[in-house]
Amino acid sequence: MTYCVAITVNRGLVFASDSRTNAGVDQLSTYSKMFTICVPGQRAFVVLTAGNLGTTQAVINRVRADIKKGAPTSLHTVESMSEAAEYVGEISLNRQHKTTGVSAGQLDSSASFILGGQIRDRNPKVMMIYPEGNFIVATRETQYLQIGEVKYGKPVLDRIITPETSLEEAALCAMVSMDSTMRSNATVGPPVEVLIYEKDSFQLDQHFTFGTDDPYLLDLKLAWDRKIKEAFSELTRFNWQRAERRRAEGE
Amino acid sequence: MTYCVAITVNRGLVFASDSRTNAGVDQLSTYSKMFTICVPGQRAFVVLTAGNLGTTQAVINRVRADIKKGAPTSLHTVESMSEAAEYVGEISLNRQHKTTGVSAGQLDSSASFILGGQIRDRNPKVMMIYPEGNFIVATRETQYLQIGEVKYGKPVLDRIITPETSLEEAALCAMVSMDSTMRSNATVGPPVEVLIYEKDSFQLDQHFTFGTDDPYLLDLKLAWDRKIKEAFSELTRFNWQRAERRRAEGE
Repeated sequence: MTYCVAITVNRGLVFASDSRTNAGVDQLSTYSKMFTICVPGQRAFVVLTAGNLGTTQAVINRVRADIKKGAPTSLHTVESMSEAAEYVGEISLNRQHKTTGVSAGQLDSSASFILGGQIRDRNPKVMMIYPEGNFIVATRETQYLQIGEVKYGKPVLDRIITPETSLEEAALCAMVSMDSTMRSNATVGPPVEVLIYEKDSFQLDQHFTFGTDDPYLLDLKLAWDRKIKEAFSELTRFNWQRAERRRAEGE
Repeated sequence: MTYCVAITVNRGLVFASDSRTNAGVDQLSTYSKMFTICVPGQRAFVVLTAGNLGTTQAVINRVRADIKKGAPTSLHTVESMSEAAEYVGEISLNRQHKTTGVSAGQLDSSASFILGGQIRDRNPKVMMIYPEGNFIVATRETQYLQIGEVKYGKPVLDRIITPETSLEEAALCAMVSMDSTMRSNATVGPPVEVLIYEKDSFQLDQHFTFGTDDPYLLDLKLAWDRKIKEAFSELTRFNWQRAERRRAEGE
């Protein structure tokens, strides 16, 4: 399984991904799911991947190869983030078509991607590319996109993220969201990668990796757990005795 | 959609359920999903339902009819909670078989149940009955069982519930779990029903309903939201500048 999230705020973009892959419960591996492509000062892209590892690796390889050989269409030539998403979606779809039919019904070769970044003179954008190759864009109303095991980490994003949230706060929120997911789904796990992209910077050097024993990650996990328990202990208790009477009266 | 949860603690059992059903997005209705059967002083059962409404209503009707006509096997005659679960599972399976094949593949008539309660001289028990008719039991290690939209409400249960948790705390935790679920899934909604069963009481009179405008439910929603935000704001920020250097050194 996988959990990846990308957040868009006024000041830029934040990306986070886990690194656990599994093909069956007895075949767990560690692979990075965050890929960066940057032409400093000109364009910056971050790709997060979920789904069939064969497909996602093939897509990333092809994206890199197209750049290397100077193909007419590549992440170095596309003129908008939408064009970039279209391009990645098409590679993904072609790749999936190749493997479909070989072992019909047996193999799920589908993959999803989050693509985010900025091209000079344009605004930063984040989009999610479906296995079908089509995509949706994060907006002011829907400021984050997720792929993989998305439910456990959603509530904290819904509560915290606004357009005015700082990049540092958004990154912290992404890490809490990741922590909640790792706690509830054993097939999502560290190292956790976090990347902060500042609007109009056109550089991707704020890319951090937190390993299993990273002291900050461990502290965050314990602190969040303690704070949730504290928050719960401070909630106003329901007056069950009074309620019971109220119900009896209403009947 | 549905969200139901049942919690077992040393002092007894807690049940909570939402009341929204939907057959397509334009056909929303309100139905209670919590059913009680009690022989005061002798036996007490609570049934929570999820899935096809035709199936769940038919199962509840049959369970009630068997009691009324004094059938050889009914919730008034079973000798253990396991036998009760077996009995409900069989009715459910038979009912599903009846509707399968009429519109093959079109209709999902499956249903899941949580059955909890206590029979005199036995311990209280909670079990989840799968659409296939088989069931699992809540234990000291796995103290709660859920049906329906289970993911959003799971983290708070994992953090709060222990065998020593009081019935009142467990009920509050179930309501927070319900609140998180309703916030994230629009097809789970009030009225929310909560039932507290005290071990060896053999009565089900602590059964409460919280409507859409219930002041306690609204307060709880706002208070929990505020407390989560406070908890987040108090987390130690990651020192991104220092981390950046650390990574550069390691490479």
